[in-house]
Amino acid sequence: MKLWQKEGVTTADQIERFTVGRDREMDLYLAPFDVLGNLAHAQMLETIGLLSGEELSLLTDELRIIYQQIQDGQFVIEEGIEDVHSQVELLLTQKLGDVGKKIHSGRSRNDQVLVDLKLFTRDRLWQVSEAVREVFDQLISRSEQHKDDLLPGYTHLQIAMPSSFGLWFGAYAEALADDMLTLQTAYRLANRNPLGSGAGYGSSFPLNRTLTTELLGFEGMHVNVVYAQMSRGKTEQTALTALAAVAATLSRMAMDICLYNSQNFGFLVLPDALTTGSSIMPHKKNPDVAELLRAKTNRMKALPMEVTMVLSNLPSGYHRDMQILKEILMPAFDDLLDCLDITTFMLEHLQVKSNLLDDSKYDLLFSVERVNELVLQGVPFREAYRTVGKDIAEHTYVPPRTLRHTHEGSIGNLDNDLIVQHMQQAMDGFKANRAQEAVAKLLA
Amino acid sequence: MKLWQKEGVTTADQIERFTVGRDREMDLYLAPFDVLGNLAHAQMLETIGLLSGEELSLLTDELRIIYQQIQDGQFVIEEGIEDVHSQVELLLTQKLGDVGKKIHSGRSRNDQVLVDLKLFTRDRLWQVSEAVREVFDQLISRSEQHKDDLLPGYTHLQIAMPSSFGLWFGAYAEALADDMLTLQTAYRLANRNPLGSGAGYGSSFPLNRTLTTELLGFEGMHVNVVYAQMSRGKTEQTALTALAAVAATLSRMAMDICLYNSQNFGFLVLPDALTTGSSIMPHKKNPDVAELLRAKTNRMKALPMEVTMVLSNLPSGYHRDMQILKEILMPAFDDLLDCLDITTFMLEHLQVKSNLLDDSKYDLLFSVERVNELVLQGVPFREAYRTVGKDIAEHTYVPPRTLRHTHEGSIGNLDNDLIVQHMQQAMDGFKANRAQEAVAKLLA
Amino acid sequence: MKLWQKEGVTTADQIERFTVGRDREMDLYLAPFDVLGNLAHAQMLETIGLLSGEELSLLTDELRIIYQQIQDGQFVIEEGIEDVHSQVELLLTQKLGDVGKKIHSGRSRNDQVLVDLKLFTRDRLWQVSEAVREVFDQLISRSEQHKDDLLPGYTHLQIAMPSSFGLWFGAYAEALADDMLTLQTAYRLANRNPLGSGAGYGSSFPLNRTLTTELLGFEGMHVNVVYAQMSRGKTEQTALTALAAVAATLSRMAMDICLYNSQNFGFLVLPDALTTGSSIMPHKKNPDVAELLRAKTNRMKALPMEVTMVLSNLPSGYHRDMQILKEILMPAFDDLLDCLDITTFMLEHLQVKSNLLDDSKYDLLFSVERVNELVLQGVPFREAYRTVGKDIAEHTYVPPRTLRHTHEGSIGNLDNDLIVQHMQQAMDGFKANRAQEAVAKLLA
Amino acid sequence: MKLWQKEGVTTADQIERFTVGRDREMDLYLAPFDVLGNLAHAQMLETIGLLSGEELSLLTDELRIIYQQIQDGQFVIEEGIEDVHSQVELLLTQKLGDVGKKIHSGRSRNDQVLVDLKLFTRDRLWQVSEAVREVFDQLISRSEQHKDDLLPGYTHLQIAMPSSFGLWFGAYAEALADDMLTLQTAYRLANRNPLGSGAGYGSSFPLNRTLTTELLGFEGMHVNVVYAQMSRGKTEQTALTALAAVAATLSRMAMDICLYNSQNFGFLVLPDALTTGSSIMPHKKNPDVAELLRAKTNRMKALPMEVTMVLSNLPSGYHRDMQILKEILMPAFDDLLDCLDITTFMLEHLQVKSNLLDDSKYDLLFSVERVNELVLQGVPFREAYRTVGKDIAEHTYVPPRTLRHTHEGSIGNLDNDLIVQHMQQAMDGFKANRAQEAVAKLLA
Repeated sequence: MKLWQKEGVTTADQIERFTVGRDREMDLYLAPFDVLGNLAHAQMLETIGLLSGEELSLLTDELRIIYQQIQDGQFVIEEGIEDVHSQVELLLTQKLGDVGKKIHSGRSRNDQVLVDLKLFTRDRLWQVSEAVREVFDQLISRSEQHKDDLLPGYTHLQIAMPSSFGLWFGAYAEALADDMLTLQTAYRLANRNPLGSGAGYGSSFPLNRTLTTELLGFEGMHVNVVYAQMSRGKTEQTALTALAAVAATLSRMAMDICLYNSQNFGFLVLPDALTTGSSIMPHKKNPDVAELLRAKTNRMKALPMEVTMVLSNLPSGYHRDMQILKEILMPAFDDLLDCLDITTFMLEHLQVKSNLLDDSKYDLLFSVERVNELVLQGVPFREAYRTVGKDIAEHTYVPPRTLRHTHEGSIGNLDNDLIVQHMQQAMDGFKANRAQEAVAKLLA
Repeated sequence: MKLWQKEGVTTADQIERFTVGRDREMDLYLAPFDVLGNLAHAQMLETIGLLSGEELSLLTDELRIIYQQIQDGQFVIEEGIEDVHSQVELLLTQKLGDVGKKIHSGRSRNDQVLVDLKLFTRDRLWQVSEAVREVFDQLISRSEQHKDDLLPGYTHLQIAMPSSFGLWFGAYAEALADDMLTLQTAYRLANRNPLGSGAGYGSSFPLNRTLTTELLGFEGMHVNVVYAQMSRGKTEQTALTALAAVAATLSRMAMDICLYNSQNFGFLVLPDALTTGSSIMPHKKNPDVAELLRAKTNRMKALPMEVTMVLSNLPSGYHRDMQILKEILMPAFDDLLDCLDITTFMLEHLQVKSNLLDDSKYDLLFSVERVNELVLQGVPFREAYRTVGKDIAEHTYVPPRTLRHTHEGSIGNLDNDLIVQHMQQAMDGFKANRAQEAVAKLLA
Repeated sequence: MKLWQKEGVTTADQIERFTVGRDREMDLYLAPFDVLGNLAHAQMLETIGLLSGEELSLLTDELRIIYQQIQDGQFVIEEGIEDVHSQVELLLTQKLGDVGKKIHSGRSRNDQVLVDLKLFTRDRLWQVSEAVREVFDQLISRSEQHKDDLLPGYTHLQIAMPSSFGLWFGAYAEALADDMLTLQTAYRLANRNPLGSGAGYGSSFPLNRTLTTELLGFEGMHVNVVYAQMSRGKTEQTALTALAAVAATLSRMAMDICLYNSQNFGFLVLPDALTTGSSIMPHKKNPDVAELLRAKTNRMKALPMEVTMVLSNLPSGYHRDMQILKEILMPAFDDLLDCLDITTFMLEHLQVKSNLLDDSKYDLLFSVERVNELVLQGVPFREAYRTVGKDIAEHTYVPPRTLRHTHEGSIGNLDNDLIVQHMQQAMDGFKANRAQEAVAKLLA
Repeated sequence: MKLWQKEGVTTADQIERFTVGRDREMDLYLAPFDVLGNLAHAQMLETIGLLSGEELSLLTDELRIIYQQIQDGQFVIEEGIEDVHSQVELLLTQKLGDVGKKIHSGRSRNDQVLVDLKLFTRDRLWQVSEAVREVFDQLISRSEQHKDDLLPGYTHLQIAMPSSFGLWFGAYAEALADDMLTLQTAYRLANRNPLGSGAGYGSSFPLNRTLTTELLGFEGMHVNVVYAQMSRGKTEQTALTALAAVAATLSRMAMDICLYNSQNFGFLVLPDALTTGSSIMPHKKNPDVAELLRAKTNRMKALPMEVTMVLSNLPSGYHRDMQILKEILMPAFDDLLDCLDITTFMLEHLQVKSNLLDDSKYDLLFSVERVNELVLQGVPFREAYRTVGKDIAEHTYVPPRTLRHTHEGSIGNLDNDLIVQHMQQAMDGFKANRAQEAVAKLLA
């Protein structure tokens, strides 16, 4: 076998490479959260007599120093050290000797990975939510700005009825408000404490899991230790499903933008920074950024399925397969955050064409209005419909071009304030400040 | 082309068959909800002067009669009638003449489909939630019953540490409690009023959408009319994602059951009603029902992806593609409800083997306990670990066989009450009574 | 549990319903193939002395009668009979008594299901291939007919360079020729004989599997009996992957059609039979059939994933889970055949707009031509590019409107004969006549 | 927006990062194939008079030098250079001045990417096929070695009938032989020449595409230029589908290994190099490598769906979305090659337990044998079945423990030579030497 015969590469190296994979890279994401988990676990150990007050104090100080190093970008997982948990333990032991080792009492490696993953996921879901909110705010702002800029409304890709940029921007805003509910659920599933579940069968030490739940600001506990372990996978899946929901909204908007940017629609102008030209066609303004946004977000929609593939039909109990989930989950947050940022930028700089409906191609958009006009003048619907149909056929149809939509959420009455309120309630439902305050307290 | 040349079959028939597909079958699911939508719309029309009080009264009476016919299984979509909405309208017109037609004012077909789908989905999600709760209750009950029946705990499919049937049953109960949060989100997304959005661009009639929102017991409105239309697809996707989450929990449990029922494990005995024999092997007790449960639920995990496939890269605005989503969504509820029912039955009748850990094969499960025992006697961890390892190697190891797990969620302290509380809060979050009361009022 | 408490419904009924599911409906698809498998198995049994010549003769006659009944639509699986295999056996026994039972020697139920599924899948894959060929022929014919009808060519949905309907139709033809290779592979995987593998561990009877392989016209045998069983799932997956490849080609074409049918493109006119109007907008010609074609084919792309979901992480050896694969596989053939038929009809009746490029909006399509013109006159490329760019900016650009594409596969030289040849070779690779001749011989 | 406000980071930088993404990293995979495409294109240009003989000679020499640099790991895409194609062009121009630029005549960037991707994919698919063959050879070898080592055969995870390691190893070998057919199709789809299709609408230069097809050793051409562009996506999808098929076989084998390695089965012993211990349980031998193999291959099964997600409902014509497909495709080859290597190693070092069936737990495996024994002695089947059933119930059943399976592919007659022949034919079908010889000639 070629692989194993490479000069100077031992079998052990190869197996190491296969088993470690990208895991050390992934573990760096977990570093700050590993410190938080350690801080809470140490405080708890002190209350049940497994650490003295002085030991706790030494450990706490040292852990806060490590946290700061991580924030400063000075933390590395050293060569030969297996993972982030070992690295943190190593740093503690180097400074504090045997006291550093004591922190591992009543805890297994699985325990640590689990709590780190929960804290990481909770943190990133909130970051994503804040970035979604920025896109949302931009959409609402553009919606208000362009509430009078009319746009052809399509059904079946056929010209249908008058719409507006106010409605178009606002629609995606409201989509994101609904996506925020899905993010909230993912957040709540990530916001439960698995610490103390050991390798999935608990510990014979008299741990106080209620205390670590409070210290880490979790909403509650994964009570059953077998389930705490089984929540691995479910947490990732639920988080990625929420990211996929946001991604689906962005990808659909990107599709609209690419279409509206086509010369055959011509509803939008993208800023030069977001288009590229052609080396052979001088007239092209290709919407590459919108296309990549569409592609990246579309791809993201398959991520929950990757997790499902890995988990399907695994019996209960930990399996090493779970390690691979990190590679699916962690970069996805970065990718979506990038997509959200570029979307905010794009929305801010998108130019909207005015007076689109002056083009006679769009006269027919108003045919329903004309029918309704006649109905309100007392003509029965079927007769009105026939009259307008005849006018169209005989080219005597004159579009009314005035709109009288007044009900909630219509062209004339966008009710964006209701959408903002819906979004705000969805975000309030995270109760994210609880987690933030607990973290701040652990680090203070 | 063969298809079009079949004797006596016209092109029009073929196209009809292609476009209608299974849609009439699907529409029957919507019938009661179409009546509810009509009842609310009619009441609203009266408040804005488009129906007289008398007309409303006539319509309301007739709609309630139709509702009762549907409940009695006497409603059919007649030959030549396109869909459920037309059938209801036909019945009204047959009885009430022109008054029956008036109910269509300020509303489009898309509007009706949307509101019916929301009401249907909301209803079925609650049904599923109640069936999940039955499985949950059964699991909690078996967990309590078998809290002292020990079970080998595995990691990596390797014998690891003592577990119990109390933990095993309880773990799946808690999994369902978390799944209930996902169901809740799906419910909340289904529980928003799209009525009044027309074909996605609203209406020039002065509709009162706030009123229909209240009358139908919705939590809120899909405000923006373009978004109301766009919510089609998202509603289905979110609902199917929630069903898939429940399905994933069931499929994993089914895998455990199939494995534990194997002679190589022998932890469970399935009731005869749930096993089949072999026509050639007299000793077989095949867990066919558990296998089919596993297969059906595993398949269900792909359903959200089917919806994604249909929606991907569709520009905004209605497309006929949406029709196909009904075939994906509607039977899925029936399928999952069947799976949940059979699961409750299986859990009720499952026999658990006692004294499993008396088998010397499982002695090693207690090695961690033995190490901890020594540690608590003052022996340093590494020395204790070495001692036990040596005892095992030299066959002098004696498993302690006593367990001292006392912390939250461990063998000795299942804390099932916390899990029940978590489940109850998740269900309370639906605020399902609001919908139920509104529906009752419409029908009273 | 409600389900089990329905009046007059016993637990046994419910479990029966759950386990049988749609299986009897699915089994009807297999009926003719079950007879073929029986015919071959019987002939083989005679050669190894397990049936006498006379018994074989009786069985053969009777099986051919049953086959004819199936063809005439007179075969049913009677109430209380478990599956198609039992029904065929029952018919044989009713007529022939004990001789009817003898045919089961050296064979298990799994064996029969497997060989029936292979024969069914092989048959349907060929049917699909022939229907694909009809679409292909139509595409080639329209391509030739419209080779001079120019069409704007897009990249990034931006107007790019001249294309033609000759190219557009021909492109989808060639796509189908490549898809035919995927169909061929699926056919070849279905075209291997599993008969004789028993329940996956063979038989102690001295079967002659080489003989049944020949009699059923299989390309070869699934040799290893454990693998023969394991091929279940892989056969379905590979078949569905091939259907999904064809579906992807159709769905993309349907997307183009919907877009080109939009007033903003206006490249195509769909026949009235394939469009629907709007009850409120007199001007609409909605491409519902193309949209449903798109949706149905898009949905089909998720089917291989459903199979994967069911199979993932199942250990080797038969599991009842496999039964569910029938419901995924079998209706998919019908669905795709419908889609292919409607596509052929649509392509035949599609009207293509002529002289599209006369619209000045498309002048820029020729800018590359103008640059190349200058280059061929000796102007360096960069200078020519700059000149044309300047002309465009200053509105002095005159599009050349003559095309000189002569190379293989270009506007001026479609080379459709090469594409037809590619398609023909792909179909020849099936060697489908071998199977057809064997089947004919068994029935003669 | 935070992202755009980072100190010292310009908007342009951010957009650059978003659009380039991992593309430069991916492009390195293409470098050698870009040189091959250039060599063929240059030769063709000379035949149509767009390069002189001398220019061709200069370019050819220089391109071969670059190829060697790539092989030596000395090729880099310099800072500020957009992609691999520009880098190669830059190197040529630095050395040869204007002659270096001439090679771009009659070709677009899309053209180059397409042909590079085809050559890359063709190359890697063959590499994968060779690695699959190594696993296959190992499986056949272990199958022969252990043809007499019996193993319990399971159905429904229930003890069923005798199997053997000969059958078990051989089954996976035959699975890979079938997978090789899927790889062959992917190879053939990758092995068609898109060069000359420009940006999807051809070129007005009189290119000779037949010549480049021959020079690059392609099996044929993507004739239609619109289709040549549309083949992007299909090529990747088909390749990934083939990788997924192989991955599915490996993952199932890995599941078996993990299960058989459990103490409850105990059929296999994994070498120490492939297991890990536990920090707290001295008795554990966790099959981490097999688990990671399972997880990595399971994840790979979702990759075709990622491609589908990106492509769905994109109208025809190039879109920048295609760029993302590189990130899905390219690393997948590396990942699968790693998995195949580790599998070969694992299979080589796996220890198989002998005399497993001596354990009385497995006596029942022989019940069918005992029934058949009686049948061959003249006892009617139903009586024999009843007798054996009674013996089992009364504990008087004595398993015969002799096996008389002689037919093709059974325990006593593995027929591995037929499987090897099937594999060889599948590999011969690639006609890979044609490509290899053409490449060698271009570089000679």
